Amino acid sequence: MNCTVISIGDELLIGQTINTNASWIGEQLNNLGLSITNGVVISDDKKEIINALYNASLRSDLVLITGGLGPTKDDITKHTLCEYFNTNLELNKEVERKIVEYFKRVNRPILKSNKDQALLPKKCTILPNPRGTASGMWFEKEDVIYISLPGVPYEMKGIMQEHVFSKLLSKIGGKKVVLNKTIRTHGMGESFLAEIIKSWEEYLDDNNIKLAYLPSPGIVKLRLTAIGVENKVLENKIHTAIEKLKDLIPNEIYGYGNASMESEVGKLLMANKLTVSTAESCTGGTVSKMITNISGSSSYFNGSIISYSNQSKIDLLGVDEEIINKNGAVSKQVAEQMAIGVRIKLSTDYGISTTGIAGPNGGTLEKPVGTVWIAVANSGGVVSKKLKLGYNRERNIHVSSISVLNLLRLELIKTF
Amino acid sequence: MNCTVISIGDELLIGQTINTNASWIGEQLNNLGLSITNGVVISDDKKEIINALYNASLRSDLVLITGGLGPTKDDITKHTLCEYFNTNLELNKEVERKIVEYFKRVNRPILKSNKDQALLPKKCTILPNPRGTASGMWFEKEDVIYISLPGVPYEMKGIMQEHVFSKLLSKIGGKKVVLNKTIRTHGMGESFLAEIIKSWEEYLDDNNIKLAYLPSPGIVKLRLTAIGVENKVLENKIHTAIEKLKDLIPNEIYGYGNASMESEVGKLLMANKLTVSTAESCTGGTVSKMITNISGSSSYFNGSIISYSNQSKIDLLGVDEEIINKNGAVSKQVAEQMAIGVRIKLSTDYGISTTGIAGPNGGTLEKPVGTVWIAVANSGGVVSKKLKLGYNRERNIHVSSISVLNLLRLELIKTF
Repeated sequence: MNCTVISIGDELLIGQTINTNASWIGEQLNNLGLSITNGVVISDDKKEIINALYNASLRSDLVLITGGLGPTKDDITKHTLCEYFNTNLELNKEVERKIVEYFKRVNRPILKSNKDQALLPKKCTILPNPRGTASGMWFEKEDVIYISLPGVPYEMKGIMQEHVFSKLLSKIGGKKVVLNKTIRTHGMGESFLAEIIKSWEEYLDDNNIKLAYLPSPGIVKLRLTAIGVENKVLENKIHTAIEKLKDLIPNEIYGYGNASMESEVGKLLMANKLTVSTAESCTGGTVSKMITNISGSSSYFNGSIISYSNQSKIDLLGVDEEIINKNGAVSKQVAEQMAIGVRIKLSTDYGISTTGIAGPNGGTLEKPVGTVWIAVANSGGVVSKKLKLGYNRERNIHVSSISVLNLLRLELIKTF
Repeated sequence: MNCTVISIGDELLIGQTINTNASWIGEQLNNLGLSITNGVVISDDKKEIINALYNASLRSDLVLITGGLGPTKDDITKHTLCEYFNTNLELNKEVERKIVEYFKRVNRPILKSNKDQALLPKKCTILPNPRGTASGMWFEKEDVIYISLPGVPYEMKGIMQEHVFSKLLSKIGGKKVVLNKTIRTHGMGESFLAEIIKSWEEYLDDNNIKLAYLPSPGIVKLRLTAIGVENKVLENKIHTAIEKLKDLIPNEIYGYGNASMESEVGKLLMANKLTVSTAESCTGGTVSKMITNISGSSSYFNGSIISYSNQSKIDLLGVDEEIINKNGAVSKQVAEQMAIGVRIKLSTDYGISTTGIAGPNGGTLEKPVGTVWIAVANSGGVVSKKLKLGYNRERNIHVSSISVLNLLRLELIKTF
C-alpha cells in the first residue's frame, strides 16, 4: 500500500512549526508495513489542497492529511474536502454533544465557533476526537482511502491510535511485508564506522538487506530494511545480521529502534536496583531532563545539582576552591570532584558530571569552545573523559549529555 | 519568487529523522521575502528525485534540495543531479585539499569515500562547506535556480548563511515584499483568545493583514502577514496593529518573532542586573535547560537543585519534612518552600520552583495527573499558582516549565 502524507499549514512552509506530525505518521505507517513514498507540505489554500489531493490519488492507495481543521477562519480543510468529494456539511448531534461535554469538563465557556466543529461532511466516516473539537474524517473514493486529521499532534495521535490503525489493518491483511530495524551506535563517526563494518555491508548486500546510515549529533543509527512475504522470516534474517554486527562493534551499540541512550541507561539502573544523580555545569540540566523524560525514572534518579557558577560548585558540591583556581572549572579534577560530590549529597550509587565550554563564547587557546570534561563516580572510584567538540552551543550541550550517559552505560555494563 | 523545498531521505519519510531542515529553510527564505509554496519529501531514489525536480521546475523560480550528499552508498543525489543537468563529475582540487586539511584538523584518518566527495558536477557553482566534506551546489537551468545542500543541519545552515543568502539577495532585488510578524502569547486557549480579540481580527481584515493562529502546548502564536511593495509601509501597518492588540491582552503577550519565554525572561533579568535559580521536581531540569540554552545566561543564572526525591527536597532545599507529610510533595506549601530554599542556597535574587504529577502514573482522586504547583520567591516574599494540566507527561513538563517562567516574567514586569 503506497501512502502520501499531506501536511497543511503556512506555519509549516515558513518554518514556524516543525513538521513533527509527518514524521510520527511516517513512522507509524512504516511500522504497519505500509510504504510511504511521498510527503507534501502546502499552504491553507483551496487550490493547493485540491491539487495535492488529486496528485496524491494518482500514486497512492492511502492519503493522510493533517491540519486546517481548527475553529478559526484560516482553517479551510473541511470545506475543501466537501468540494473535492462533492458533498456538504451536516450537523452531527453526537459530536455536538461531546463538544459541549468537553467544554464543561475543562471548565471553559463554549463559543459558536466551537459548536460549528460539529458540522461535518455527509460522505465521510467520523473518527471521534475526545481530546479536542476537530473530528477526524475517513473518505473512500475510487479505491483510494483519504484520512483527514487535526494538526494538533496530541489530538492527531489519539485518533490514529484509537481508530485509524485498526481500520487500516483490516484493509491491508495479507499484503507485502516491510520490516525495518534500527541499530543505535555512539562513539564512531559515520565514515569511520562504515570502514569498520565494510565486510558486514557486503554480507547485507548478499542477503538483500538494505542499509542506511542516519547520523545525528553524537549518534549514528543504522537502519536495516528487508522486504518479503513473511514477517518471521524477515525477523530471523535481520536478527542474524545484527549478531554479526555485534562482533565488529561490541561497545558502540547502545540500543535498537526508538530506544534512547537515557532509556537504556534507565533500564540498566533499574534492573540492578542502582540509583544515579547528576552534577551539571555546561549541560545546564539537559542530562537531568533526559533522565526524567522517562516515566518511572524516580525509582533510580534522586536529583541533580546544576552548578552553573563556580561558587555553587564549591557550596553545593564540595568542590575544592583551590582546585578550581589551579586547574580551572573545566578540568579533569573539577569534573571528578563534581561527580564524587553529587553522589554523596544525593546519596546515590552513581554520580555523573559535566563541565565544559559550550560556547559560542568563553573559549581560550588552551581550552577552546567545545572542550568538555565528563566523569562517572561510584563507591569504587571515579572515571573521567575529555571531549573535544565543535563550535555549536546546542550541539555541544547535546553531545556532552549523551556522552556522559554513555560513559555511565559502559561502567554499568562492565560491572555486571 | 516562488520556492519549492525538496528534502531527500527515507529516514524523513519513515519518521526516523524529523525534518527540521525544511522548517529552517522555510523560515530563512520567508525572511528574505520569498514565497515558499511547496514542501516535498522523497526517498533516496533516482526516479523520485528526477520527478520531484521536474515538477518543482514547473511551479518554482527556486528549488532547494537537501540530503543524499554523504560519503556512503545510499547517497545518490550528486549522481542524479548529473543526470538531470546532463553533466558529469570532475575532481575539484581545491575541495580535495580542504577535505584533506579537515581530516587533519579533527585528527581522523581519511578514507577513499571521503576523498571522493571532491568529485563534483562540472556544470555547477560550488558552495564551499568548511564543516564537512559534502559541498553545496548551485545550478541554473531555464530561469530556475537549483541549490543542493547536505542534509546535516549544521553544515547546511553554514552554507546557507555564508553563500546562499547573498547570492539569492542579488537575484531578487526589487520584487514583491512579504512581511511576517509573529506575536507570542501565553495564558489563554486558542478559541478563548479568538473571542477576546474578535474586533481586532475585523480591523486586520479591513487593513489587508492576514492572521493565523498557531497553537502549541502552553503557547498561542499569532502570525500577521502583509504583502506590498515597500517594507517600511508594511512595518508601520503591522506596528499599528500590534499596538491595538496590546490594549486587549496586555499581560498575555510575552514576545515577538523567535523570542522564546526563556530569552525574554533572560533579557528582563539581565537588564535589571538580577539573578535566578530553579528548584525543580516534576520538570526534572527542563526549566534549567531552557534557561541555559541561552548563550550568556551565566550572567543571571547561578544554578538549580533538581530535587526529584522527597529526601532531596528536605536535605538540599530545606523543605520541612512535616510540611511534606501533612500536605504532600505536590502542594502550595512545598512549592513555596522550594522557591524560598533555592533562592537562599544559590544566593540569587529570585528562586522559582515546580512540583507536580507529570504522569502517566502517580495521580490520585484528589491530585490527578497534571496537578502542578509553581512558585516564585524574592526578598519580598513568595507567590504561587496551581496548574491543572492533562494526561501527557511530556506536555505537562513542558507547559509547567513555560508557566513558571511566565510567572517570573509577570513578577519582573510588576516590579519595574
